[in-house]
Parts: sequence; C-alpha cells; structure tokens
Amino acid sequence: MQVPPSVGVVTAQTARFDEPIVLKSGGELPGFWLVYETYGALNNDKSNAVLVCHALSGNHHIAGRYTLQDKKPGWWDNLIGPGKPIDTERFFVIGVNNLGGCHGSTGPKSANPRTGKPYGAAFPMVTVEDWVVTQAKLADRLGIERFAAVVGGSLGGMQVLQWSITYPERLRHALVIAASPRLTAQNIAFNDVARQAILSDPDFHGGDYYRHGVVPTRGLRLARMLGHITYLSDDAMGAKFGRMLRSGAYAFGYDVEFEIESYLRYQGDKFAASFDANTYLLMTKALDYFDPAHHYQCTLSEALKPALANFLVISFTTDWRFAPERSREIIKALVDNNRSVSYAEITSSHGHDAFLMVDDYYHSVVRTYMNHLAF
Amino acid sequence: MQVPPSVGVVTAQTARFDEPIVLKSGGELPGFWLVYETYGALNNDKSNAVLVCHALSGNHHIAGRYTLQDKKPGWWDNLIGPGKPIDTERFFVIGVNNLGGCHGSTGPKSANPRTGKPYGAAFPMVTVEDWVVTQAKLADRLGIERFAAVVGGSLGGMQVLQWSITYPERLRHALVIAASPRLTAQNIAFNDVARQAILSDPDFHGGDYYRHGVVPTRGLRLARMLGHITYLSDDAMGAKFGRMLRSGAYAFGYDVEFEIESYLRYQGDKFAASFDANTYLLMTKALDYFDPAHHYQCTLSEALKPALANFLVISFTTDWRFAPERSREIIKALVDNNRSVSYAEITSSHGHDAFLMVDDYYHSVVRTYMNHLAF
Repeated sequence: MQVPPSVGVVTAQTARFDEPIVLKSGGELPGFWLVYETYGALNNDKSNAVLVCHALSGNHHIAGRYTLQDKKPGWWDNLIGPGKPIDTERFFVIGVNNLGGCHGSTGPKSANPRTGKPYGAAFPMVTVEDWVVTQAKLADRLGIERFAAVVGGSLGGMQVLQWSITYPERLRHALVIAASPRLTAQNIAFNDVARQAILSDPDFHGGDYYRHGVVPTRGLRLARMLGHITYLSDDAMGAKFGRMLRSGAYAFGYDVEFEIESYLRYQGDKFAASFDANTYLLMTKALDYFDPAHHYQCTLSEALKPALANFLVISFTTDWRFAPERSREIIKALVDNNRSVSYAEITSSHGHDAFLMVDDYYHSVVRTYMNHLAF
Repeated sequence: MQVPPSVGVVTAQTARFDEPIVLKSGGELPGFWLVYETYGALNNDKSNAVLVCHALSGNHHIAGRYTLQDKKPGWWDNLIGPGKPIDTERFFVIGVNNLGGCHGSTGPKSANPRTGKPYGAAFPMVTVEDWVVTQAKLADRLGIERFAAVVGGSLGGMQVLQWSITYPERLRHALVIAASPRLTAQNIAFNDVARQAILSDPDFHGGDYYRHGVVPTRGLRLARMLGHITYLSDDAMGAKFGRMLRSGAYAFGYDVEFEIESYLRYQGDKFAASFDANTYLLMTKALDYFDPAHHYQCTLSEALKPALANFLVISFTTDWRFAPERSREIIKALVDNNRSVSYAEITSSHGHDAFLMVDDYYHSVVRTYMNHLAF
C-alpha cells in the first residue's frame, strides 16, 4: 500500500492577544490566546492563505501528525496536504482552535488571569461572529490581509458564511460545506437535549466542576451519543450495524446487545474522556444562535448582500442534520445577490459525517475548484 | 361548540391471574394482574370485541373520563366512542395496561408477593409476545374466543402483528397503524441513548430506587425529551415552533430561550413526574426485541405465514420513526402470503404522533373499515 502524501509532522503555535475583547453576548475577556497550525508556505504577497474553520468538536489540528509514531492525523488530513484537494504545495493553510475551545485556545477550562482559576461558568457565551472577529485578528498577526479562501464544514461552514458578511473584502473564495444558514427547530431540540444532559449531571456543578475535581462525564457521554445519531444517516447505520447482535441471541439485559449500542457507547465514552463539557455547551449555543437573517432582521438574501466572495457550496444527499434544502437556501440568497456560486449535491450514504470522509466525487469537486482558484 | 360524543365516565377494572407465568426472557412471575377498561357492550355471541393495544407510554385508559370534571380523556378518545371511527355503539372495546406497566398492571413498582417489596430490578424483561399471551388470558377471562379486531398504533401495532402470528384464529381483523416489523439501527440507537440517560442517573440505583426514596427524574426527563423529537416531524416542529424566542432577543444563557426548548422541557418534566423509569426501560427493550423474522429465523413473509386475519395497515407520510417504508414491508409480507390487506398512506405533517391525532382522512379510513367489518 502506498503511503498517502501528508504535511508530515506538525507543531501547534500560539498567538496571544493582550487587549480586552467584548463579545456579541456582552461578555468580555481581558485578553485571549488562540492555538493554531499552518501547513505549506505563505507566498511573498501573502495571497495564498486558506483558513479552515472547525465544527463542533473539531480543533486546529487539521492535517499531519504530532510525531512520526502518531497514529491519528488531523481531522481533515484526507482533504488537506501535498497534492490533495486543498494542496499545501500551493496554499498556506491555517487551522485555528476557536475561542471557547478546549484544545489550547482560551476557553472555560483556561485560567482566568484575574483569579488564576479556570473560568468555568464565568466564561462568556461565544458566537460565530466572535470567532470570525478573533480569526481575523490572527490573520492580522500573520500579515494576511485577504484569504484566497475560507473553508469549513457544518458549524465551520457557518463561519465561512459569516466571514463573507463581516469581512467581505478579506476572502476571495468561500467554501461552505454541509452547512445551514440557521438551525431548524429540530436541530435546536437535539442540541437542547444534549445540553440538558450535561446541565443536569450532578457532576456539572453549575459549570464549575473543575474546582470540585470532577467532570460531568455522564452528561457529555449522552450528548455525544445523541449527536452521533444525527451525524449518521439511517441508511448508513442500517448498512453498518443493522440489527446485528454482539452474541447471536437476545440477552434480556441492559448491557450491550446490539452492535449499534456498542458503537455509540464507545463513541460517547471516548469523547467524554477527552472533551470539555463547558466547551460543548458553548459550541451548541453558537450553533443555535447563528442566524444572519435574524441578526440583521432581514431575509437571508439581504443578510448576504455584503458578500463579495465567490462561493462553492456542497451538500450531501443523506445529510438530515443540515439537509441539501438548507444549502439550497444559501444558493438562492447568493443568486438573489448576483454572486458567483457553484453548487454540488453529493450522492452519499454517510449522512452529515460525509463531509469528513473520502469520496472521489466530493474531493474532485473541491480539488477542481481549488485548482482554478485565482489569488 | 358541540360537545363531541364520548363513552362518558369510565372505571378501570382488575383481573388477577394467580398461576405463575414464564416469560420469553426466561424470567417468571408467581402471578400477575392486569388493569383494563371496557367501553360499549359485549353482544350475546361475544363476537364484537375489539382489543386496543397501547404504545410505549400508553395505558388502558383509552376513552372517556374518570370523573365528569376530568379534563383529560383517554389517549385515543378521538377515535373510540359512540359514533366514532371505532364505534362503541357497535363494538365492545377493551383497553389493557400491559404487563410491566406502571398504571395498575403488575410491573417493576408493584410489590413482589414473595418479598412484599417492589420488584425493581428483579422484574423480568417483557416482550411483545408476552403481552399478547397475557392479553389472551384476559380475553379468556372475559369469555372472548375471537376478537372482531385487534387494533394498535406504534408499539401497539407490533402487538397486533404478533397477535396474528401467535393466535391466528383469535382475531378476524388486524389494524396495524404507524408500526414497523422491526426497529432499525437508528431506532435502537435512540432507545439506547434514552436508556443510558436513565441507567446512568445516580438516582437510578440499579433499578431499586424505590427503596432509596428517590426517582431517576433527570434520566427519565431526558429520555422523554429525546423521544418527543422522534415523534414529531421536522416540518411540524418548524411550523409550530420554528426559531421563535420566548423573549424577542437572545439571552446568552442556558435557561429556555427558544420556544421549542420550553415545549420539550415541559414535556420531559410532566412525563418524568408521572411515569416509572423501570417501565420505560422495559418498553424500549420490548421495542428493540420485536422482530418476528429474527425470532423465527426466517423472512417476514415466512413469519407472517400463520396469519389469518384481514389487515388494515396505515402509515403517515412524515413519520420518520416508523416510516411508510416499514409499513410497506408488512404489506409485502402479507401479499406474499395472499392475505387480504388494505393500506392507507396518510398525508400528514405531524410525524409519528399523527396516529394519535384527528385527521379526517385517517379517521374516515378507520371508520369505513370498521363499518364494513364482518363479525
């Protein structure tokens, strides 16, 4: 087997911002830092930078490995690297852990410089708009005036949309993948059940569990199990697990019986051991709040009027979390504004998670778009 | 406004069965009782009886009220009563709380006669097959050899299917509404998250919470909130709640902000205050286990071969829990066996819950079928 090309061993960097920042929620931070990674080289006129925005449980580690022995590469390593659809031989790619995250950027588990203790419940709500503003500060720091492209899937795609509204001049191309211009009632409902699982966990302690030396593992585990169901399609789950039993017969008990139970509990346990519950809450709220049309008290077309970027919008047929209909709403709003937009609806059985997976057609759409991209 | 006709004030009755019973799980009970209600009059040759099987959170109180002041009638009062689609002027209708229930029939919160204390975790798993066997014992007690019809929606419809397999001679007609011949992996996944919410609630105490004087309210509330999302369609939720906020603006906190959150939390709280968590666990397991084809190690067509009843199968277009495709699988298996079957796919925006709601076309289908039913 040929080893696929990769950006190789990478190291995360940190950018400190010492000036206070006021967030959309009205909350403020005395300063903050963002952890980020870069792949490829910035060209002389700094015109080949691509910003990749992460989704709910993502982070800045998008491609490559931290050591040669590292078994797991970054979360979008199949898309980003030398010769890959987003080609690091050509582009300077940046991944950043969003403010409020739990992978190195300032978030609820970070020490509040005013108290020396973790922020916990005192960490303010963050929104997609706040992320875009803080990502722009990082771009300033790196000397990048305008991105060749801003790219993101799911919640990451929402950040791309917001970039096109907040900083129309600062991106030439916007790649909005498996995203939505706003959550539906059902999306919010699932998020609320996930939040209630965390908030009602006795180990949550109102968000200040750090100083109690516990973690709301039960709640976070349930939240992730539930999330996972919405990331997969009914068909994909049926094809992969169906009604397969771990042993051939019913056990008539509450331990794992069906393979799908085993899979979900494993995913829940793994996530609960590595992710911060307060960050999970913040991310789901940022999802709920994102709604450019609401924010500007107008239609989506009016909200997207400032956008100047050229758009590539991609959806996946079996994605029932952010269905193709949602992407088509974005298309309509862009067309209403005479924006240049390409749209690909990818046939896939993998539901929402398809945006993270290898699919020849999907990857060739991204590759072709990126290859022809002027910067 | 005209007061709709009703069966009026009703009283529940109890049938005791003192002989031990061995269940499909291998568990046994030294005896049990079933609480039930009847509406209308049994005719002389006892040929006009209709058994109504309940779904996950249902019970024997199907129609009428317990007092004249009672604000809430039985759960299928819109379908069953004098002059209604299932006409109590013509039929003798029986509702029974299933074994393992928490509304009067023997269940986990009942006293184990051997110890005098609630069964709790010692209550055995019950299956759809066990329910049908125990319902048949009640029919024996009432002198009913053959039902004019057995009727049920959702998990109730699964019981109807099982009736046609276990006691083919004992029902003339089978009305299978919003049901499925087996759960999909996604269905099981949702059930497992609901169960994990209950099982991981510190107040669950391995199922023996009764003697700790607590109730796993948090877990049961989460389970019900999640269930509710799957009972409603995305469209219906969107039409009813959309992204409506309780106040006009974002509050940037974890209290209720969106109307859908208010609705779900209310439903969760109400249910958690009135339903028994152990019963909820048992019911979801009975759903997971139901799979006649698996049980008989054959196709659904072969599993339904013994059936002699005439069938009416009904599904609802936006039901994504038990989608019309599932009903069509039942139709195919019946047709394979040359059974008489009518099928109606009702256009509805209400998702799975549509089977409980008033819809002129749906009700007229049931009415017409019942009016022409020979007994």
